Amino acid sequence: MTLRPHWTAGLHHDGSELYVSNPLPRSGETITVRLRAPADAPVRHIFLRTAPDGEEDLKMMRRAREDGVSVWWETTLTLTMPRLNYRFKVMSGEGAYWYNALGASRANSPDGYDFKLLADFAAPAWLEAGVFYQIFPDRFYNGDPANDVPPGAWTNHHGHAVQRRAWDEPPLPWNDGGNLDFYGGDLAGIIQKLDVLRELGVTGLYLNPIFTAYSNHRYDIADYNHVDPHLGGNTALAELRRALDKAGMRLVLDVTPNHCGARHHWFLAAQADAHAPTAEYFTFHHHPDDYECWLGHRSLVKLNYHSARLRDAMYAAPDSVLRRWLLPPYRIDGWRLDVANMTARQGMQQLEHKIWRGVRRAVKADQPETYLVGENFYDGTPHLQGDELDAVMNYQGFTIPVWSWLRGRELPAEVTYGREWLDPFPLPAEALAEQWQRFRAAVPWVVTRQQFNQLGSHDTPRILSLVGGDKNLLRLGVVLLLTFPGVPCIYYGDEIGMEGLFDPDNRRPMRWDTTTWDMDLREFYRRLIALRRSAPALRRGGFQMVYAAGGLLAYQRQSPEQRLLVIACRGPEPLAADVPVRHAGLADGTPLTDVLNGTTHTVQDGRLRFDGLQAGAALILQA
Amino acid sequence: MTLRPHWTAGLHHDGSELYVSNPLPRSGETITVRLRAPADAPVRHIFLRTAPDGEEDLKMMRRAREDGVSVWWETTLTLTMPRLNYRFKVMSGEGAYWYNALGASRANSPDGYDFKLLADFAAPAWLEAGVFYQIFPDRFYNGDPANDVPPGAWTNHHGHAVQRRAWDEPPLPWNDGGNLDFYGGDLAGIIQKLDVLRELGVTGLYLNPIFTAYSNHRYDIADYNHVDPHLGGNTALAELRRALDKAGMRLVLDVTPNHCGARHHWFLAAQADAHAPTAEYFTFHHHPDDYECWLGHRSLVKLNYHSARLRDAMYAAPDSVLRRWLLPPYRIDGWRLDVANMTARQGMQQLEHKIWRGVRRAVKADQPETYLVGENFYDGTPHLQGDELDAVMNYQGFTIPVWSWLRGRELPAEVTYGREWLDPFPLPAEALAEQWQRFRAAVPWVVTRQQFNQLGSHDTPRILSLVGGDKNLLRLGVVLLLTFPGVPCIYYGDEIGMEGLFDPDNRRPMRWDTTTWDMDLREFYRRLIALRRSAPALRRGGFQMVYAAGGLLAYQRQSPEQRLLVIACRGPEPLAADVPVRHAGLADGTPLTDVLNGTTHTVQDGRLRFDGLQAGAALILQA
Repeated sequence: MTLRPHWTAGLHHDGSELYVSNPLPRSGETITVRLRAPADAPVRHIFLRTAPDGEEDLKMMRRAREDGVSVWWETTLTLTMPRLNYRFKVMSGEGAYWYNALGASRANSPDGYDFKLLADFAAPAWLEAGVFYQIFPDRFYNGDPANDVPPGAWTNHHGHAVQRRAWDEPPLPWNDGGNLDFYGGDLAGIIQKLDVLRELGVTGLYLNPIFTAYSNHRYDIADYNHVDPHLGGNTALAELRRALDKAGMRLVLDVTPNHCGARHHWFLAAQADAHAPTAEYFTFHHHPDDYECWLGHRSLVKLNYHSARLRDAMYAAPDSVLRRWLLPPYRIDGWRLDVANMTARQGMQQLEHKIWRGVRRAVKADQPETYLVGENFYDGTPHLQGDELDAVMNYQGFTIPVWSWLRGRELPAEVTYGREWLDPFPLPAEALAEQWQRFRAAVPWVVTRQQFNQLGSHDTPRILSLVGGDKNLLRLGVVLLLTFPGVPCIYYGDEIGMEGLFDPDNRRPMRWDTTTWDMDLREFYRRLIALRRSAPALRRGGFQMVYAAGGLLAYQRQSPEQRLLVIACRGPEPLAADVPVRHAGLADGTPLTDVLNGTTHTVQDGRLRFDGLQAGAALILQA
Repeated sequence: MTLRPHWTAGLHHDGSELYVSNPLPRSGETITVRLRAPADAPVRHIFLRTAPDGEEDLKMMRRAREDGVSVWWETTLTLTMPRLNYRFKVMSGEGAYWYNALGASRANSPDGYDFKLLADFAAPAWLEAGVFYQIFPDRFYNGDPANDVPPGAWTNHHGHAVQRRAWDEPPLPWNDGGNLDFYGGDLAGIIQKLDVLRELGVTGLYLNPIFTAYSNHRYDIADYNHVDPHLGGNTALAELRRALDKAGMRLVLDVTPNHCGARHHWFLAAQADAHAPTAEYFTFHHHPDDYECWLGHRSLVKLNYHSARLRDAMYAAPDSVLRRWLLPPYRIDGWRLDVANMTARQGMQQLEHKIWRGVRRAVKADQPETYLVGENFYDGTPHLQGDELDAVMNYQGFTIPVWSWLRGRELPAEVTYGREWLDPFPLPAEALAEQWQRFRAAVPWVVTRQQFNQLGSHDTPRILSLVGGDKNLLRLGVVLLLTFPGVPCIYYGDEIGMEGLFDPDNRRPMRWDTTTWDMDLREFYRRLIALRRSAPALRRGGFQMVYAAGGLLAYQRQSPEQRLLVIACRGPEPLAADVPVRHAGLADGTPLTDVLNGTTHTVQDGRLRFDGLQAGAALILQA
């Protein structure tokens, strides 16, 4: 609503090293905080605004450095609180502007979108160069046919029985298969194919559940303490760990703290005896058959965190589920916490903050470098303030707006039919930028840089299918994924051009006939992964949205050593693009080199001009 | 950044009765939720979006009613959680728009600015028609000269001694008086002048501190359990209570839970003996003389809420400070909690949420209708989510933007000199609206309607001085104060035209020579107070910002029985105003009557036209 003068777009701060002398300060430490402003802005003074113990403090900043395009204002700041929020008050010849993580505004705001610093935050250092690869274990590779699930081995309560599928058959829809169609993929298979992944360049695996369960997705967990024998059991996991150590790779496992399977021995005991020790882990409306379950799925029984004994079993005790797998010989590096958004929440009893704080304390006490990623399709930011989760699967803050922007066309009827809640219209880049910004602005920068970003997962359409099979748009998506702040994760097979819209099509077995692979695409992934791992600006650089309009967007990643400008055009029409960049601190005459193809562009009149950007064009320009 | 099509400005929802069938539902209750949309908007479907236990739920709404201008969409909602947030997903022919308490956006957002419902929230019902009057006790009226503080009675550690001032002398600046200049105002004086206040129409008093202390403002409290004998002691408070009962008036007292005076017996005992029971109430860096104090004031000693014994003494025990005054014969109706923003916050130990939840539980257990108002010049919204405070002094969400907009001119040098952090430029109405909205949007509607709104207090310039003595602008401010959602409070003497910019000028004694009163102004206050108390739209109505541009703003208050449109012009130039109102649901041809002067205006082409609005013009139009 408020008018923002043009110059305010050139104000920039983020929590990265150029702007915060130490993004990971200790409590009591004094750091330097900087704000970049356009040299020609009508700025009189700038104050750093904090609220130590809740009382406003305005500290006048000094002009520390000028380079013709920008003025760098700076002052010091002492970490007096565990979480310290700050914004800037820019006194201009046109009135005072507040500048927080949502940008500049004449109006003042609640503190929620202030920049935030955490004292004594132990960020897992290994995430900086981390690139994950997600594997759905039953569908990756069958390394040991001896442990396959035999057809008919069991049935579910809907009457489906285990079926064996051939590797090149499509997975069965739920009505036909009931998630009991198995392909035989296992941990031995992953070990055998590790070289392929190392060649791709990924540095870690995220595996969908591997604990003993009765469905092909294994979210209906029956025993948190044993790896499913059909995947090779605990022994195979120890072997995988050894193989990953040799490959220099990390391992994140998937666990569901929200519910367990109805065949879990905790629940069987509770059903058998209302006074069993584990009976309090559950909520029986009427013992034994009327119990709280997850979203109406009777095979998935809600866990009740009001029970201190359950909290012990799940995370608090040394041999709890979330701690035991951190120990040798498994030494996993992180947990992907399934249904984290709903865990410990039950109507009038909302215990989520208490539980996640407890989980963090317990897990980090053993292994401070453990990575805690929550599944959350919605707003995970309340759990990302430094004392609960390290990250969420960043659907709202990255993935979903990318999908909607990238496709650039109305969704076809086969996608939208019966889904009135799905927006068929593509998102303009302005809205993409706004959504990215809001979710980024709600969390500390050091959390943003460890958010778990994907273009798709076992729960979503594959990106290639979502963009209608357009490989150029897919590549554009890959550039966004691998240049965006956070930890990128590639869903198995996306890199060779696999397709699949909805479950179970998005869980087709990995194709191992390499003649069917899109080798150019895979090479593109490989180059981008290598860049993501090596470029300082991508490893540690800040983020500034530089331009966003319709089908075109541009952002800058900048570290003290390097500045990269990403320009992305989704089309649909080729664009004669004219991208303003002076407000990103780029002076006229600055040459920029495309790191993908070596061509050079020069800033003129504060702008970069491109004659024709094709749909799917993605430039990564280094200044 | 995102483009918002014109029709989205006509989407409206707030938590009031027209939009929520019961704004104060019990847990488990099912209510009806409505959204108003323009009849000509390209809307296909609208979903009510909630997240029960954290999982998104989209419920399709139905077109329940149309009136040619608006369509009312509705659905039901069950209160399954203590605090339930919701927003709307509006599927249009131009893409999906999310509509939350900040308005419509193509981009999705974190949940913080969702609309919010509270289950089982016990709102003090008496606030609905409440209008407070703030009194600084030493400066209102001397009803009992026998209890006056004798000159020289004591000194402070800066060497000031008690001085007696004559009623018509100005208060002394701190350097000369050290806040030891007394006028003799007391509780007997308030009792004697109660008829004057009843005639004005106010329904409650908010008194600055009355407990035993050693300064004229009495924030350096020495004994929480005794009313200062120079104000008449506990007996006088009991008498005031009886007088207020007779007058049908409420009483809010001021207490400082953040610190006590260095002469408080708790602190004297702690200084005398490091093992005294009260020693743990404080933080001694080095016993006895190096202790944590408030913002460096050695006479104000910070209280340390890590001490369970202090928590008992302050609020948890039945005879604690915050509970004992709720009992007969005092039966106070509320607490204004001084320095609430900093209470229980000390560097790495931030206990504020725990403490305010504890205070609420303790106080409301005795008296559910007790009103808890925190002082907070900054962001109080984290404490206004239903389980801590009832309200804050709404400086950010009402007062400060009103000051800055209303003055309509650059601040003069005598105000800004040496205050580089003060914005000399007036705020445009767009920014006023935005700031109001952000602070409103961050809290549940039922909290908004009990926020404590003022045009000024003992801590701020008086409104008349702030607008440069312009009585028209003052009246405009009074209209805003008394038509804005929340509980208005008038600072003593504002209603007769008293002036005073900074402390101590803003604390001049009340003038009792009625020949010096601006009787027209006082009558204007009286009329507005009467309207505020009787008009359903002001007592219970929702709030829609209708127009905001530069020096002009308009908003609507609407209840099921009544619709009022407030139009305010701060100038400086007279304006030929053309206010669009169709998006407020007003049809062409609707006549509106000015409740202040009876003139009638008619909606034409979706607009209200005014030939010339003078600076300070304020219209309250009833449809």
